[in-house]
Amino acid sequence: VKALEPRNPSYEAEVRASFAAQAMMTELGVEIGDVVPGKVTLSMPFNARFTQQHGFLHGGVTIACADTACGFAALSLMPPDAGVLTVECKSSMLSPGRGERFRFTGEVIKPGRTLVFTEGRAWAVSGQETRLIATISATMMVIEGREDVRG
Amino acid sequence: VKALEPRNPSYEAEVRASFAAQAMMTELGVEIGDVVPGKVTLSMPFNARFTQQHGFLHGGVTIACADTACGFAALSLMPPDAGVLTVECKSSMLSPGRGERFRFTGEVIKPGRTLVFTEGRAWAVSGQETRLIATISATMMVIEGREDVRG
Amino acid sequence: VKALEPRNPSYEAEVRASFAAQAMMTELGVEIGDVVPGKVTLSMPFNARFTQQHGFLHGGVTIACADTACGFAALSLMPPDAGVLTVECKSSMLSPGRGERFRFTGEVIKPGRTLVFTEGRAWAVSGQETRLIATISATMMVIEGREDVRG
Amino acid sequence: VKALEPRNPSYEAEVRASFAAQAMMTELGVEIGDVVPGKVTLSMPFNARFTQQHGFLHGGVTIACADTACGFAALSLMPPDAGVLTVECKSSMLSPGRGERFRFTGEVIKPGRTLVFTEGRAWAVSGQETRLIATISATMMVIEGREDVRG
Repeated sequence: VKALEPRNPSYEAEVRASFAAQAMMTELGVEIGDVVPGKVTLSMPFNARFTQQHGFLHGGVTIACADTACGFAALSLMPPDAGVLTVECKSSMLSPGRGERFRFTGEVIKPGRTLVFTEGRAWAVSGQETRLIATISATMMVIEGREDVRG
Repeated sequence: VKALEPRNPSYEAEVRASFAAQAMMTELGVEIGDVVPGKVTLSMPFNARFTQQHGFLHGGVTIACADTACGFAALSLMPPDAGVLTVECKSSMLSPGRGERFRFTGEVIKPGRTLVFTEGRAWAVSGQETRLIATISATMMVIEGREDVRG
Repeated sequence: VKALEPRNPSYEAEVRASFAAQAMMTELGVEIGDVVPGKVTLSMPFNARFTQQHGFLHGGVTIACADTACGFAALSLMPPDAGVLTVECKSSMLSPGRGERFRFTGEVIKPGRTLVFTEGRAWAVSGQETRLIATISATMMVIEGREDVRG
Repeated sequence: VKALEPRNPSYEAEVRASFAAQAMMTELGVEIGDVVPGKVTLSMPFNARFTQQHGFLHGGVTIACADTACGFAALSLMPPDAGVLTVECKSSMLSPGRGERFRFTGEVIKPGRTLVFTEGRAWAVSGQETRLIATISATMMVIEGREDVRG
């Protein structure tokens, strides 16, 4: 993999501002960690409000956060004034969302002018144990200018 | 498609009880509608707490609800004491989550002893207009007995 | 679903010419059937050269043909001089490729300027029986001009 | 990732025999390379018979070979007398199939009693250049006994 070059010197500020503007991330208690060109990490504590019928983190939250990490990984490589939106994503659910905390990474595997291919991982963390619980493969579309309304 | 036969006479009560036990569905304000063998409908009003950076419904919510509808569609065909879990899902995001209400359907396209293949749709509803915003293709795994802890 | 309008009056000739130019389709013995705006049907006889270890049609052939049907469904809606390429596809393998003949359909579920979302189905046909063996969800990208080299 | 332990001392012979039994692999000119527990490599030369309309390797071949590599990666971890079949796969097509040779890897990312999650990569090789052209995420199902007819 070639080193990924940001095209916006303010890429990190851009990513953090866009993250802060997602009400859902606040609602879920997600925090943004490292932001490097082409790679973003998110994390959240377990939250009983967002569980499925067995009391584990809902798989939909896992996918939402992994997809969001992938979207911000793509955004970190955009030129100023360009945004991204998810075209599609596929997630494999390897293990239940059982943990004290959850960590999500998104990574660009191929940037392009129109499309950005990404991959992500979700881990459950309990004490010293870290377990891979899901993988994601997501395609992002580049949106130029102010009309990036699709999100 | 052959007519799908429930193997649990209480399939509808089972699905509604399992839905009620998902804290996340309550949190999102999702309601369960029709439950027929192999097909389930969910709906939710727009909720500004679960939006992305442009103020539309977060794509992760769309996927979570469509996947959940697919899971309950599969559950409606299970024998008593069997549960289901999502193995993987792929979602295509056709359009932004702009609407007053959202509707999600999940449908079994091939039931099996071990795996159940499903498909779902998500629509945004605004006044008289209904717009398809996402499709989902999800595989569910049958979990026998009480150890269906994976969810 | 709104009726889909072709933007090229010669859409059918265009699709058939592009199909004829795919060496692999000839090699597999695939024939093109109906071509209507946004929907294309392909079919092929069982061929022992393209089998897996149990003597059934290789799943890769099923996916290749279903994806190709989806690509031509998208191409049928393109303006003159525009082509399409597959961005990604996801296929669920419902049943083995056991049959005398196979039929594949591809259908556009949302056309767009840059991306075209499609879905496809694969069936095995034996005597009077027709069995759904796979589904596909594929995203196509529109390629303008002569540089549609990506295929 | 934990080291993956084979449960069949003859895993390599098993994988090579199953590969040799896939007529389609012979037809495509695919050769099997390294076989280690949980990871398999395949390769093939460019072949004009299996091209799309621009003369590049057909994307369906890329997917078929990547999926096959994933299936054999899963098979390498099976106990004696167990087989695997592809439940579903999703492939992202990063780049056209332009190259003199192609290499495919399949890798198990989570083995299980019933399901095995895998990931794969496809590369085009031209002279000294190696380019990633596709990624795959595939779920395999374990088939016990002699009835592994689904393939």
